[in-house]
Amino acid sequence: MRVIIVGCGRLGAYLALALDKQNHLVTIIDRNSDSFNRLDPNFRGTMVLGVGIDEDVLRRAGIERADAFIAATNGDNTNAMAAEIARLVFNVPKVIARLYDPIREETFRAFGQIETVCPTVMSANKISEMLGNSA
Amino acid sequence: MRVIIVGCGRLGAYLALALDKQNHLVTIIDRNSDSFNRLDPNFRGTMVLGVGIDEDVLRRAGIERADAFIAATNGDNTNAMAAEIARLVFNVPKVIARLYDPIREETFRAFGQIETVCPTVMSANKISEMLGNSA
Repeated sequence: MRVIIVGCGRLGAYLALALDKQNHLVTIIDRNSDSFNRLDPNFRGTMVLGVGIDEDVLRRAGIERADAFIAATNGDNTNAMAAEIARLVFNVPKVIARLYDPIREETFRAFGQIETVCPTVMSANKISEMLGNSA
Repeated sequence: MRVIIVGCGRLGAYLALALDKQNHLVTIIDRNSDSFNRLDPNFRGTMVLGVGIDEDVLRRAGIERADAFIAATNGDNTNAMAAEIARLVFNVPKVIARLYDPIREETFRAFGQIETVCPTVMSANKISEMLGNSA
């Protein structure tokens, strides 16, 4: 699959390597070139410098042929907006946004066109489980 | 169980309510009183103002009788340190630290005394899975 990731923070960089290892064709976008230093030296994908909500930047990253788009910047607003552009403007079939805010995640998911991942809810569920097991 | 949570950010506040609903006795610590505004009005637990790596603050929060301790501030350093104090100084039986950095999480977990939750790894695994299912 051709996968575009927006945001080369911890999640973006980690995911880029993982998907590259699974032989997906990965392009990662970040507005700060220093962020690409987080990428593993073995990463074989493409880096694009720019803002992930700029349609020209997205086109340069090959969004018109992308099979999947992952919005993984540190800002929920940016992720929501980038995901909407990918889904509604460019019709990317699979769009996933990381949203820290559980309430926003629920609302956003209710619209149905974009999938979401909420680290807050996942962490809380995992911790509850870990406590339950020890009780 | 008597549970102490350090950090009333998104995860801390969400978890405090979830554990309270499961009838655990929850005490939540934050150094900024505004953070307690994140708590749901239905939260029945205790709030303690102070720094989660200060032993006096931890004593005030009842750490000497705690069954579990969760370090959930936004700083990996603070979480690692608070978790170590809880485990090594106060012998809390169950100690869990949220660590954003996957490498640090691995290292930390290798020591064995403290359990860890890494939202970065969980999010990446979840996203890989979501892509796999659609492929």
